[in-house]
Amino acid sequence: MKPSIPKGTRDFGPVEMARRNYIFETIRKVYALYGFRQIETPATENLSTLMGKYGEEGDKLLFKILNSGDFKNAVSTDDYAEKSAAALASRFCEKGLRYDLTVPFARYVVQHREELQMPFKRYQIQPVWRADRPQKGRYREFYQCDADIVGSDSLLNEVELMQIIDEVFSRFGIRVSIKINNRKILTGIAEIIGAADKIIDITVAIDKLDKIGLEKVNEELLAAGLNAEQVQTLQPIIELKGSNAEKVATMREVLAASETGLKGCDEVAFVLDTLAAAGSLRNEIELDLTLARGLNYYTGCIFGGGRYDNLTGIFGMPGLSGVGISFGADRIYDVLNGLDLYPSDTVGSVRLLFINFGEREAARCLEYAAAARKKGVSTEVYPDTVKMKKQMAYANAQHIPFVALVGESELAENRLTLKNMETGEQQQLSIEEALAIIEG
Amino acid sequence: MKPSIPKGTRDFGPVEMARRNYIFETIRKVYALYGFRQIETPATENLSTLMGKYGEEGDKLLFKILNSGDFKNAVSTDDYAEKSAAALASRFCEKGLRYDLTVPFARYVVQHREELQMPFKRYQIQPVWRADRPQKGRYREFYQCDADIVGSDSLLNEVELMQIIDEVFSRFGIRVSIKINNRKILTGIAEIIGAADKIIDITVAIDKLDKIGLEKVNEELLAAGLNAEQVQTLQPIIELKGSNAEKVATMREVLAASETGLKGCDEVAFVLDTLAAAGSLRNEIELDLTLARGLNYYTGCIFGGGRYDNLTGIFGMPGLSGVGISFGADRIYDVLNGLDLYPSDTVGSVRLLFINFGEREAARCLEYAAAARKKGVSTEVYPDTVKMKKQMAYANAQHIPFVALVGESELAENRLTLKNMETGEQQQLSIEEALAIIEG
Repeated sequence: MKPSIPKGTRDFGPVEMARRNYIFETIRKVYALYGFRQIETPATENLSTLMGKYGEEGDKLLFKILNSGDFKNAVSTDDYAEKSAAALASRFCEKGLRYDLTVPFARYVVQHREELQMPFKRYQIQPVWRADRPQKGRYREFYQCDADIVGSDSLLNEVELMQIIDEVFSRFGIRVSIKINNRKILTGIAEIIGAADKIIDITVAIDKLDKIGLEKVNEELLAAGLNAEQVQTLQPIIELKGSNAEKVATMREVLAASETGLKGCDEVAFVLDTLAAAGSLRNEIELDLTLARGLNYYTGCIFGGGRYDNLTGIFGMPGLSGVGISFGADRIYDVLNGLDLYPSDTVGSVRLLFINFGEREAARCLEYAAAARKKGVSTEVYPDTVKMKKQMAYANAQHIPFVALVGESELAENRLTLKNMETGEQQQLSIEEALAIIEG
Repeated sequence: MKPSIPKGTRDFGPVEMARRNYIFETIRKVYALYGFRQIETPATENLSTLMGKYGEEGDKLLFKILNSGDFKNAVSTDDYAEKSAAALASRFCEKGLRYDLTVPFARYVVQHREELQMPFKRYQIQPVWRADRPQKGRYREFYQCDADIVGSDSLLNEVELMQIIDEVFSRFGIRVSIKINNRKILTGIAEIIGAADKIIDITVAIDKLDKIGLEKVNEELLAAGLNAEQVQTLQPIIELKGSNAEKVATMREVLAASETGLKGCDEVAFVLDTLAAAGSLRNEIELDLTLARGLNYYTGCIFGGGRYDNLTGIFGMPGLSGVGISFGADRIYDVLNGLDLYPSDTVGSVRLLFINFGEREAARCLEYAAAARKKGVSTEVYPDTVKMKKQMAYANAQHIPFVALVGESELAENRLTLKNMETGEQQQLSIEEALAIIEG
């Protein structure tokens, strides 16, 4: 009967925590460097805030919290017999765990609108919960790291957010290709072929070009219900090639008849040109029409995030445009682990362990430890007077680089023996001398 | 219909977050300095892990999570009609939100026992949830900051934890009186008067001495069911006075007939003497027999935490002793706010705002901003070309100390006008000169 944790959740031990902290701190610092300010919202939100915001499927994936006290009062036995689980859940439960950071942020903006200075740039690094079927790399509790700007329509925000993506991955030492697309271009494509409902099918089919070839892509489009003429019109889009500037030029020709489509081209061109002029990107940026995430809510540029024109309308505050990005800590964690890209000092911050030879010796060690900590050296005194071998094994297991021994002779001479655990070298020193070596 | 959050929960805006981060970082750094290593456990635990660990009242205060999918299957209509809310909850729900950090830690230790090197020193800073009636200073979601050592019986652990309490409050600039007591002393008192069930009544009554005087305390003890002889025996304990050493000496006399009580005196004396020898405490430490928190589980020293002899027994792993402390972030937050004890740089990290005069000027500002960020200067470019007054108001509201203006003439001369928002002083400078001033 070993205890366990709910499926899809994880414990993070000391090594994992040190690595995750490195990831969160890196993202946090870049967000702050660009003037974003941190907020936190509660883990629980009213279900009235959450329900209906993530589609029907999302409603099912919300974790709902049973009302405390006599929740049974709200549902008679007859009602219980008649009603569906979903209907009962909304009677038994008033609260749920947050599903993402965007809806709580929208709620936050509306609730605190009088205190907020617009444009409001916030970042938020917190866990979210989803009752998804757990599988490799997908968890029921996981962290999101979001940054959003609300109250500004300027495309400079998109530019800065893409710079942030570039900066974060550069700091991690991960090379990426940053994709950009625009919802208005996709809308334009749908307009010119007269098939607004097929845009997902189209992007999914185009996305397979490299894998299955042009002929099969066209077959898929026909199978999805497009006619031969529509598929013909799509050919330059499917085969879109060249530099970003060349791609934009091609799209302008194809979308000449769609005002919305041309607007999308203008927006993408502005972001690409401004980024090029600033000249600071270290990763490649690529216009990719198959990037079609979040089409339910994105209205402008789409990248590792996107622009949504009416974030807060659903809470009764219309007309507020926003744009944001999100980093998934778990994916970054997997990549950094796979490539072993952590800085060498990420894990293992304890620098010095005092071996415990007995009560009198340990008392002296406590004095020395206080001196070490005063200098900021993370230090432990082994609490129990046990075999030296066991204490040394502890130092090794914790990767502690220095061990100090204070036995009877050291006690008499006001000195200690410092052992460098890597080289095995030992020297008798005063505490000041020892600390100089450890700090050096 | 303004949106709201569940009662007893809070949003933390940018200023509050900066202050809270200062609190968490201070505690975190001291824990790490003493060799504690961070872990995190999931927000949700199986109810089988949580139930029965916090008493009957605690079970009621657990937030339970409705099983996802068709939770209704588990309870027939007949069962629904018959069963109590509590019984139904355990059928509808498998998981709950964590109530504290100690039980999840015990579960963690048992679950991961093969990977852990003993003694295991961990700290954990995470929110917990309780369905308590919300009131001033009491929330339904709040953070705990715990440090515990398991797998060591040594009293040196108590000594170091008290040093940590002293260090943390010193860093906050808060003067405290650190109380210490010992469960074995309380047990000894109960033994010598032969009233084991009255120990809570006794400590509560003694605690009122300063307020109501000796006579009334004695009356309360009689009212609680003690006889005159028992109250007589308690007199030296109620009137316990003097230095800690004097108090221990008195207690040794009073408890001479109780082996357990004397053991408690020895433990307290060891901790006090060792702390005095190390000589590093900046706050006062005081033996206080009325400190009687956590008598359900503490078995040895009690302070801002305590010693529990069988942390993991409940999960089938007996014989593992532990000792820990906990800081309540909310109480510290209230005190620091009340005394305005935050370091001056806690809030407001953005140093430089570029005013936006138009597309061409903003493009130059982006270049300059990149240079500033490269030097680690947190920088914003105002995204929209709006009235200067509005942009300056933004800088003021965010307490940004420097504003840079790049208009037509600055653009032509490759310079900028730097305005010091505190002094009002303005100068035309190159970006390098400006950054030297901002960094200076």
